Amino acid sequence: MRQALEKIGAPNPIWEAVATADQLDSFIAAHGPEVIVKTPIGGYDGKGVRVVSSSTQVQDWLAEPMITSLGGQLLVEQKVKFKRELAQLSARNQSGEFASWTVVETRQQNGVCSEVLSPAPELTPELAEKAVQIARLISESLGVTGNLAVEMFETSTGELLVNELAMRPHNSGHFTIEGSVTSQFEQHLRAVLDLPLGSTKPLKPAAVMVNLLGVSDTHDFMDNYSATMSALPEAKIHSYGKAPRLGRKLGHVTVVGDDLSACLEMAEAARKQLNK
Amino acid sequence: MRQALEKIGAPNPIWEAVATADQLDSFIAAHGPEVIVKTPIGGYDGKGVRVVSSSTQVQDWLAEPMITSLGGQLLVEQKVKFKRELAQLSARNQSGEFASWTVVETRQQNGVCSEVLSPAPELTPELAEKAVQIARLISESLGVTGNLAVEMFETSTGELLVNELAMRPHNSGHFTIEGSVTSQFEQHLRAVLDLPLGSTKPLKPAAVMVNLLGVSDTHDFMDNYSATMSALPEAKIHSYGKAPRLGRKLGHVTVVGDDLSACLEMAEAARKQLNK
Repeated sequence: MRQALEKIGAPNPIWEAVATADQLDSFIAAHGPEVIVKTPIGGYDGKGVRVVSSSTQVQDWLAEPMITSLGGQLLVEQKVKFKRELAQLSARNQSGEFASWTVVETRQQNGVCSEVLSPAPELTPELAEKAVQIARLISESLGVTGNLAVEMFETSTGELLVNELAMRPHNSGHFTIEGSVTSQFEQHLRAVLDLPLGSTKPLKPAAVMVNLLGVSDTHDFMDNYSATMSALPEAKIHSYGKAPRLGRKLGHVTVVGDDLSACLEMAEAARKQLNK
Repeated sequence: MRQALEKIGAPNPIWEAVATADQLDSFIAAHGPEVIVKTPIGGYDGKGVRVVSSSTQVQDWLAEPMITSLGGQLLVEQKVKFKRELAQLSARNQSGEFASWTVVETRQQNGVCSEVLSPAPELTPELAEKAVQIARLISESLGVTGNLAVEMFETSTGELLVNELAMRPHNSGHFTIEGSVTSQFEQHLRAVLDLPLGSTKPLKPAAVMVNLLGVSDTHDFMDNYSATMSALPEAKIHSYGKAPRLGRKLGHVTVVGDDLSACLEMAEAARKQLNK
C-alpha cells in the first residue's frame, strides 16, 4: 500500500519495509524515539500494530513463520504528530463515475473506532477539498471499483497523511445509512454492478455514529434496547446480533440532526444507557 | 367500517347499507344526483367502487352471488364535494403508544394513488391537528395494533370526512422510507412487536412520492433505470419486481428536499423518463 501510494504521489508518512532488527533500529534512530510497526497480514482494529522504541519489542514478529513466509518484512512508519484522524469515504463504479461523502472525524479508543462525526468539525474548506482529491487520486489511480475509505491524519502543521485504506463499506461510513441520500451499502452495490451512483448529499447538517463495543464478555446491550428507544426515539440503534465480548464491535448508534454537538450528546446518551 | 366510525364519532360522509334497487334509488333521490356505491368485499385501487345515478348501474352487483351470500348489502355514500384528498398515517403499539407522521395530500388517477405530497401543501394547522385527532380516535377506539392510514376528504367547506381506512403499511406512507427518521415499515414491526415507537420526524422539510403505474402490458421501466439514475441521482427509485401490466403498481419514486415543488418536479421528471 505504501509503495502504491508513493508511486501515485499520495501523501504518506515516512515509512520503510524492514527485514531485520538492525534496519528497524536505524529507522528508530532516524525517525523515533517512537515509531509504528505493522505486520504485513492480519491487521485490523489496532491488531498487528505496535508503537515501539526498540526492535526488541517486535522480536516475536521478526521470527513469526507467517511473516517470514511473506518475505520477512515489517512495515515501519514515523509516529505522526496528529491533531486528529479524518476519514474520506467515496465510491467509484466500473465506468469510472466517482462520488464522495462528507469528510468525517473519527475518534478511536484503544485503536478501535469509537465515534464518527460528520462533517469533521471546524475543518477548513481547503483540507476538506484536499481529502476528496486524495480519495479520487487513489480511487482512479488504483482503479478501485466499489467503496474506498481513506483514513488520514490531520497533522498539527495542517497536512493530510494517509493512514490506512479500506476498499469496502467501512465503519467510518455507517452514518450514511440514515445521514445521506444514498447509504454506503447501496452505493457499494451500485458501484460493483456498474449502476449510476446515487447522491451522497447529507439529509441533515450533522450526523454522529458511535460504536457499541462490548463492555464485558456477557453484557448484552439489547437488554436495554426498549428503555433506550423509549427515552431516545430519534436514536437509530443497530445490533449486529453477535455474541458479546469485551471490546468487540457489537453494534452502533446513529443520530442525525441540525447540530453536531446535540447529535453527539444524544448518541452518547444512548450508548451509555445501552451499556448500563 | 362506517358503523364503527359512526359509533365512535369519527366524521363520515352520509351513508347507508342498501339491499334493494328501491333503497338505493331512494338514497340517490335524497343525496344525488350522483352517489358512490361500494361492494362489501374485493375493493382496492378503485375496484369495487362506482359512481352512479341510478340503481340500474349496479344491477350486476345486486345479483352477484358473492355479495348476496354476504348479506346482500351494498354501501352507498354521498359523493362528497372535496377540494382534495388527505391521508394521515399513524402507528400504535400494543402498549398503547401512538405516533403520527406528517399529514399528506394524495392525488389519484382513475381511482389509483398517483402522487403523495408531504406535508399537504397549505393545510391549516387546525386541520392538520384535526387529522391527527381523527387518526388517534380511530386507532385507540378500535384498539389498532400496527399502522393505520386514514384517507380523508378535505371538503370545500373546510371539513375532514373519512374516506377509507387501511390498517397496514400503506401507499400514502412510502415517502417515510427516505423522508422520516423512522419508516412506516420499521414502525409497523415495532408496533406489532410492542417495541417503543421510533421518531416520526421528517428528515427534510418536504418529501414527494410518485407511483410508477404500468403504462402498458409490456413496458418495463427498469430498462430506463440507469439513464434515469444518472440524470437524477437524488431520486430514489423503487421497483417491486412485478410483471408489467397497464395501470399496475410496479414501483415508486421518492424525492426529499427543502422545497415541495422542486421535489415534485424531480419525482415527475424521473417518472416521465422511466415510463418513456
